[in-house]
Order: sequence, then structure tokens, then C-alpha cells
Amino acid sequence: MAASTPLKVVVFLGTVKENRLGLRVARFVMAQLEKTGHDATLFDPADKKLPLLEKAAFFYREGEEKPAVLAEMEQQVRAADAYIVVSGEYNHSIPPALANMMDYFGGSCYAYKPSGIVCYSPGIYGGMRAAMQLRCFLGELGCLSVSNIFGIPRVHQALGEDGSPIDSHMESGAEKLIKDLDWHAHAMRNHRQTAGKPT
Amino acid sequence: MAASTPLKVVVFLGTVKENRLGLRVARFVMAQLEKTGHDATLFDPADKKLPLLEKAAFFYREGEEKPAVLAEMEQQVRAADAYIVVSGEYNHSIPPALANMMDYFGGSCYAYKPSGIVCYSPGIYGGMRAAMQLRCFLGELGCLSVSNIFGIPRVHQALGEDGSPIDSHMESGAEKLIKDLDWHAHAMRNHRQTAGKPT
Amino acid sequence: MAASTPLKVVVFLGTVKENRLGLRVARFVMAQLEKTGHDATLFDPADKKLPLLEKAAFFYREGEEKPAVLAEMEQQVRAADAYIVVSGEYNHSIPPALANMMDYFGGSCYAYKPSGIVCYSPGIYGGMRAAMQLRCFLGELGCLSVSNIFGIPRVHQALGEDGSPIDSHMESGAEKLIKDLDWHAHAMRNHRQTAGKPT
Amino acid sequence: MAASTPLKVVVFLGTVKENRLGLRVARFVMAQLEKTGHDATLFDPADKKLPLLEKAAFFYREGEEKPAVLAEMEQQVRAADAYIVVSGEYNHSIPPALANMMDYFGGSCYAYKPSGIVCYSPGIYGGMRAAMQLRCFLGELGCLSVSNIFGIPRVHQALGEDGSPIDSHMESGAEKLIKDLDWHAHAMRNHRQTAGKPT
Repeated sequence: MAASTPLKVVVFLGTVKENRLGLRVARFVMAQLEKTGHDATLFDPADKKLPLLEKAAFFYREGEEKPAVLAEMEQQVRAADAYIVVSGEYNHSIPPALANMMDYFGGSCYAYKPSGIVCYSPGIYGGMRAAMQLRCFLGELGCLSVSNIFGIPRVHQALGEDGSPIDSHMESGAEKLIKDLDWHAHAMRNHRQTAGKPT
Repeated sequence: MAASTPLKVVVFLGTVKENRLGLRVARFVMAQLEKTGHDATLFDPADKKLPLLEKAAFFYREGEEKPAVLAEMEQQVRAADAYIVVSGEYNHSIPPALANMMDYFGGSCYAYKPSGIVCYSPGIYGGMRAAMQLRCFLGELGCLSVSNIFGIPRVHQALGEDGSPIDSHMESGAEKLIKDLDWHAHAMRNHRQTAGKPT
Repeated sequence: MAASTPLKVVVFLGTVKENRLGLRVARFVMAQLEKTGHDATLFDPADKKLPLLEKAAFFYREGEEKPAVLAEMEQQVRAADAYIVVSGEYNHSIPPALANMMDYFGGSCYAYKPSGIVCYSPGIYGGMRAAMQLRCFLGELGCLSVSNIFGIPRVHQALGEDGSPIDSHMESGAEKLIKDLDWHAHAMRNHRQTAGKPT
Repeated sequence: MAASTPLKVVVFLGTVKENRLGLRVARFVMAQLEKTGHDATLFDPADKKLPLLEKAAFFYREGEEKPAVLAEMEQQVRAADAYIVVSGEYNHSIPPALANMMDYFGGSCYAYKPSGIVCYSPGIYGGMRAAMQLRCFLGELGCLSVSNIFGIPRVHQALGEDGSPIDSHMESGAEKLIKDLDWHAHAMRNHRQTAGKPT
């Protein structure tokens, strides 16, 4: 097979908490994506500083000024071939910082592409309960979550602060998810290029 | 039965969106609660202005200054006998403004009390998909959601801006939910007073 | 506190699989309930042999003959003060044998009583994904699931075939769930006796 | 575009209830699929008569005799390009007859293909709560559910017994779902043929 253009992946980090463990997960995911030849961009809500949603990007009318950060993010979401969400679990549910950031953009940006769920917790269940809600959320956005979910229990013992893997299962776990994501991303990118998106 | 102290109910509104439809639902719910003799308090995230959660109320250590609004809300959540959440549906999921506000407070405030779900949407499914996620969320917080869920489809046609009911099912729907909530709130308040909370 | 009548608990086992691991969990739960003074009854779908639901117990009209096993189970569900579901996880969802058995009976049997979720899996996530669906299912039946969920990962290493605990966390885990269930069961039974059920 | 081989679609009907409304939905879906050139097969649990799962198809070892109906169904599931589930809602959850039938077959049959959710109810919410659980269920099986969900409220007024549409939204609703399903089915079939499945 001829070399193909790298897949563009946007990684959404879902936390702005003090001492957030999610940052090490995002760093790890970014490193794994880069190692496997992806063109990866991290959306960190602590950098983007989007407030609780008052107005989604798709509600700005022509002539209205869209904040620059929002316009840039929207373009990046639209250009991506796939997404990864890095999600903790807040009261068994999706972290508000994650959903809030993604809610700014509409189905027309996300649709007909796949997404991957990486979830984590300091406890033993690895954030899997939030992952179940994410299946619904990502499905509605149009970026279907692939079957494999990479759950990381006791995340503080599995990854160092810089995202380096301590637990030996980290790299094989990420590899499985990325393989599943890539398969679907290529299938859908090829078909978008051949057949367009449904109208 | 002798008159009993009114039930204290905190109502959480889950949106800060421009032109939010949820405000009319919150007004309607507050009016129904007051009409039925409850001591009701509305938590509107547009007033409370809590940012995306960096530090929950229960993570402030002795000597650290807790923001006044947070300290007051915490006391009110702790003092309540029951909760109602007024929830739209964002991408089939819990509105971040709702979860974010409630995440500031811990299970020790919410537990051994019931909660009621009022959900709405401009479409035909009335926010019921978000309600399913709320069952998990509220269960983990310790305030079990009662069986009855009051879902309001086409909310803009069901309630006026001031919260006055247009649709004839509004008052009977609210009544059913409040009856279910009250039953559980009295059962649990009585038992808290008699037996305390489990330790 | 004066001695009170033991709580009647129906335990629903959710599997008829060959070599089912759930049986050891049910045995363990039954032993823990009996040790703590409950009047516990096990519903094992392999014994009850109810087929996939064609007709629920509440759809038999007067004069129609209800199968004896169904009539007896209905009476026991109605008489119970609380429920425990023992649930594996089938494709991240509620085991059909569990939902099928419970679907035979209506909200009028289950309502205004609490339920407890005990979930398990041979893997590391302990069935927690099915537990999230169970919150919705039990909520709709009217028997609110208490906050504490007792999840058992690697169940084959945690419990022996006869239900005896191998893992040292088993008894403390069961104790927490039962304490939470008992608190709510007493609160609700007292209130049913005092105030009746809402009409 | 050159004519391509028709897509093979297996339709899973999820009910064996007396007077089941699902049958008219299945008939309607089959007719819509045939009209749009699909090679559609209906799996009706009332015909297949699979009992509550004791042993999945993938647990039969070499030499063990697999029931003929199970072997045939397995082959058809494996050969399909896409799936549609026709799902009611039992206590806000997946109908056991649906999950039970699908649980017999493993991810190796379903994976790398899309699925579509058609849900219904006699009430106003159209089975959307069960649909949310189905997203998790189908995701785990490997056949990702497409974004569009076709929900049918008041199904008895929307479709006749023979599956003929009464409500004018039926055909346009089905069309949207089938378009979304087809897009993904072609994308994935093309990629399976080109790149194989991941190993």
C-alpha cells in the first residue's frame, strides 16, 4: 500500500482540576499518537479557557464576531479525521469540562469520523462508567466511538507525571485502541473522499 | 397528621445558555413547589457563576478561604431535604452547567435524601436521554432519583417565559413528581431524625 | 432500639449460563443477608424456568389461570421490603435472564422500596457497566437503587464455588451495601406503615 | 457510480410478547430495506426460539454439535454488512429477547460493521431510553451504532399491523437512518475488502 497522508487526530482533555491526573494521560496519548505517525493536536480546556457554554460556535451568524480561539478550534475539529477523548469520571458521569468543550461544535464538524475513548480513575474501575455515557454523547455528535475502550485504573500508579508509562499494560492498551481507531478513520476518510458525506 | 415542618428543596437549574429555555422550567418548578408548601431555593448557575470545577468545596482545608458563594451553597445543599434538577439535554447527555454546579459538593451533603428529575427539550423526546445519565449521577451523589421523571417535550410550547403553564399536562405532571419526591423525602427525613445516617 | 421485624429481601440472580459464576455470588449474598438477620429468598432463573416474557404477571385478567410459579413469585416480590440484584455483565449490559425475570412483575410490587446492586465479572471492571443500566431499570420499576454498589472484579478469585469469600474485601464490601440498603428499607417500610403509599 | 453488490442486512426483532407491536415495526423496516435494494433477513425470536442463553455459539468446541438454528444464524450474522435492531423499551431498558438473541454471537461476527437503532413505544418517548443502552451494547459487540436513531412514539398509531405507514413521518425517518447506515456500511465493507480486519 502506498504511503497515505497521516491521520489528523484531535485529543480532547476533559479536566481543569487542580492537580489533575488527566494531564498525564493526555501526554501519554499524545506521545503514543506521535510515535505511530499521527498528526495529533491536544485541546486542553485549561489553555482554551472556554466558559460554560452560552453560545455554540454554530450559532454565530454572519457578521457576528466569533472569538478567535473558538474559530480556530472549530476549524481544527472540522479538519480532523478522528478524535480521542481523555476522560476521568465525575460522579460516575462525563466530566463537565470535557462535554462543555465538545458541545461548542456541531455534528457537521464531527460526523462521519470515528472517536476513541481513553478513560481513567484513581480507583479500580478506570472511569468505565463515564465511558458508557460517552458512547451516547459521541454517537449523537456523529463521531462513533470504536469498540475498544482503553480504561486505566489507578492512573497515578500507571503513568508518571510526564505521561511516561509505569504499568506495563499501558503501551499495549493504547496500541489496541489506536489500531481500532485507525481502521475506522481510514475506512471513513476513504469513503468521504470517494462518496462525500450524505446530504 | 399534625402539620410538619415544610420540606426544604434545592432546585438546580442546568443551563447558562443564551435564550435558555430552562429558565421557564425552573420558574414553573419553583412556583409548583411553593404552591405545595415547600421551602424552595433556586440555584441558577448564571447567578452563582461557579467556573468549571478546579476545586470542590470539600477539598478546602482548614484555614483555606472558601469563596463565600460556595460556602453558602454548601450549607444550603447540606440543609436540604430533597433536590430537583431541571435538565435540558446536550448531545443526549447531562448539561455541563448542571453537573459542574452539583460536582462542587460531596456525597456527605446529598446522601440519604431523594431527588427528582425534571427534563425538557424543544424536540419530542423531552430530554429523557439526559435523564437516564442523571439517574447514575444522582445515585452516586447519594440522593436517589425517584421513579417518576417529569419530561417536557416541546418546552417552548408547554410553558410561557415566566414559567406559566400553557400545556394542560404541566400541572398534573409536576404534581406526580412532587408527590413521589415528597413521599421519599418524608420517609428519609423521619429516618434521619430517628436513626441518624449510617456511619 | 427495640427489636424490629426482620427485613424481607428477595435476591434476583441474573444468569442461567453453563458454569455460571453468578451462583457463587448469590450464595455469598444470601449468606451475608442471613448472617445479618434478614429474611432472604433467592430467585434463581434456572429454577424458576420462566421463558422469555410473553405475558407479564399483571396482564392476567380475572379468571385467567396464572402459572403457579409466577403467582408465588409475585406474592413474594410484593411482600418484600427490599431487593438485591446479582448481576453479571453481558456485552456491557444487563443480563437478559435478570431483566426478563424482573419484567414479569409490575411497579406496584416493587415501588417505595429500595434495591441494592451486586455486580461482578471475571475481568477487572466488576460489571460496573451493567450496574449503570440497572440504575435506570430499577428506578423505573420503583425500587430505587441505593448509592453504594458492590462490584466484584475477578469474581472467580474472590469467591469460592460455595460462595465463601477468598478475597478479604468481600465481607466488608457486602457489609457496606447491606447497611445502605437497610437504612433505606427501614425508612421506607416505616413510612409505608405510617403514611401508606401515594395513590 | 457503478452498481455494487447489495448490502446484506440482518434485522433483529426484540420481542416475543403477546400482541407485540414490534412485529409491525420489523415488517416496516424490512419493506423499507427491500425497497432500497438491500438483501435483508429478519431474525424473529418467536421463530428462532432460542432459550435464555446457557451457551453462546462461540463456546461450542470442535466436535460438539451446535444446534442447526444457531449455526445458521451465526453464519448469517457473520456474512452481514450491517445490522438493524428493532427495539421496544422494557422498564427503560433493552428488551431481554433482543439482547438474548444477539448475545449468542461474538464480536468476531459483528465487528467492523455498522448498526442502526429503530426504537418504538406506545408512549411519547419512542423507546429512546432503551436506545441509549443499545449504544453501549452494540459498541461492545463491535457493530457501532450510527448517529441517527429512528424513534417511533405511539407506534400503534404510526404503523398498521402489516407494517404499512400511517404517520407521514415514517418513511422519511426510515430513509434518514438507512442513508446513515448505508454510508457506514459501504465505508467499512470497502475497507474490509481492501485492508482486511485488524488482527
